[in-house]
Amino acid sequence: MALVTVTFLGPAASFSHQAAVESFGTSVELQARPSFADAFAAVQQQEVDYAIVPSENSSNGSVVQTLDLLADPAGSYPDVRVCGEHYLSVHHCLLGRNGQVDLNSINKLYTHPQAWGQCDKFLAKHFKGVERQDVSSTSKAGEIVAGETTERSAAIASRFAAEHHGLDIIEENIEDNANNTTRFLVLRNMNSERTTRLPFEKVKITPSPSTTTRKTLISFMVYQNAPGALADALLIFKKHGMNLTSINTRPSQRIAWQYIFLVECQMAPAYDDKEAVTKVLAELKDVTENSRDLGTWNSMGSSSDQ
Amino acid sequence: MALVTVTFLGPAASFSHQAAVESFGTSVELQARPSFADAFAAVQQQEVDYAIVPSENSSNGSVVQTLDLLADPAGSYPDVRVCGEHYLSVHHCLLGRNGQVDLNSINKLYTHPQAWGQCDKFLAKHFKGVERQDVSSTSKAGEIVAGETTERSAAIASRFAAEHHGLDIIEENIEDNANNTTRFLVLRNMNSERTTRLPFEKVKITPSPSTTTRKTLISFMVYQNAPGALADALLIFKKHGMNLTSINTRPSQRIAWQYIFLVECQMAPAYDDKEAVTKVLAELKDVTENSRDLGTWNSMGSSSDQ
Repeated sequence: MALVTVTFLGPAASFSHQAAVESFGTSVELQARPSFADAFAAVQQQEVDYAIVPSENSSNGSVVQTLDLLADPAGSYPDVRVCGEHYLSVHHCLLGRNGQVDLNSINKLYTHPQAWGQCDKFLAKHFKGVERQDVSSTSKAGEIVAGETTERSAAIASRFAAEHHGLDIIEENIEDNANNTTRFLVLRNMNSERTTRLPFEKVKITPSPSTTTRKTLISFMVYQNAPGALADALLIFKKHGMNLTSINTRPSQRIAWQYIFLVECQMAPAYDDKEAVTKVLAELKDVTENSRDLGTWNSMGSSSDQ
Repeated sequence: MALVTVTFLGPAASFSHQAAVESFGTSVELQARPSFADAFAAVQQQEVDYAIVPSENSSNGSVVQTLDLLADPAGSYPDVRVCGEHYLSVHHCLLGRNGQVDLNSINKLYTHPQAWGQCDKFLAKHFKGVERQDVSSTSKAGEIVAGETTERSAAIASRFAAEHHGLDIIEENIEDNANNTTRFLVLRNMNSERTTRLPFEKVKITPSPSTTTRKTLISFMVYQNAPGALADALLIFKKHGMNLTSINTRPSQRIAWQYIFLVECQMAPAYDDKEAVTKVLAELKDVTENSRDLGTWNSMGSSSDQ
């Protein structure tokens, strides 16, 4: 069988790239895609076996671009399913060209706009008044610094990006919040024979937690002008032993103020998850305009896993 | 009694400013604030009577900055309550300096990054290859064009901004989606004597819909490792005749993957809303770590109101 192929949001050395390497190792073929939509399309068209996309950050909350692609109001990705997850610790480092280790000589900093805020304390202490240049990704910041001829600029990016671009780490873990974590979802095509024969659980290189909790993602849209329909829909999950852990609300993009709900649940251990999901979906038909099973996977055990 | 004071997210001629004028008219004192947090703080400290903040857009979904301030994990705004809402139609226009009405002579465009995407079709038809400059708000774009000495640049901004900056409207309603609407929430301090004596319902200049639906916003945080707690909490709303219309999930900012849920509901007409809210909050105490009444207000009747 040909190499397993995995796509992620580029550029190379992005946090998505790092999540792909941590999950799948380096013996798979990794392909960068320029957008989340391209990653979803690659799975839908079976151009790749897997995609890995960020779904949620412990500080900032949901990644709405990913939620909107999962909610899929136009039905563009009908066969895409979540089959796994990966938790990535988000650490930032100050990176410079080889040999440049003096904090005080740096007169220009590059990073993604979000990273300035995440490293606020460190920057206030060491870089008050130093010129800052926004770039499209932390990896891009590393690339720019690596390619400069002056040695007085520095990038804020990951250790992974430092290794990729051949930069020195001047200072490590400069982020304000050391527990900042992003959850990535692993996607496959439900009709893919390759990923059925060789599922994510057998491909991934990260060890599974000792107790296996199963998670399920289901989306649905309630009828407009149907008071109580959302509560009725959520009751169905409870009836079948599926514990709601999060609910996200996204616009349906069809009618203003109509929503698609994305419900994630965990299974009480006594229940059979496949049977429960089938029953939930069957009963959701009576109270929703449409609903969809977006996949069931083994929890990789964040701190709040039950 | 001194003039009613209302704060909004600046700069002048922003969509928030327009929402404030549409809601309160021009006989109140309007004050721009530089951030949503400043607007919340102004209400908490009773520096102003009201604030008006965007909560949700019909195409893009929730405004997470506003949700996070309502969720208020640090308890910074304990007395802020929602007391009303306003729906603003988001229309974009192409604006130029007086007398400059020739589309073809324009060689530079200014607007907020989000507006490019919202006017994609118009731009593709008329401005392929024309230089684009991102600015911090559509109003700022108008200000720049109004202040330029050359007459060959144009801004994408609202009719409201055109009037404010004294610009001509070259083309109106250039947005792809004519139904793009933003809902604003009106905030007051629950301890304010002024807004108790002169409530929003009596200050606002927009007519109320013929049938009055009441909406309520409640936030709560469930205990960690409490399977089923979210469903139990939501059941309490149903029991007291409160129909869930949307649920938003935001990080608690205390423990990774612990959430604050923001639940908006409408009241079935047969129920008394004050009594129902009191009962819901009392029962939420048994199944949540904490919960909070964020206010009840009269619906201004979007298309999906029930």
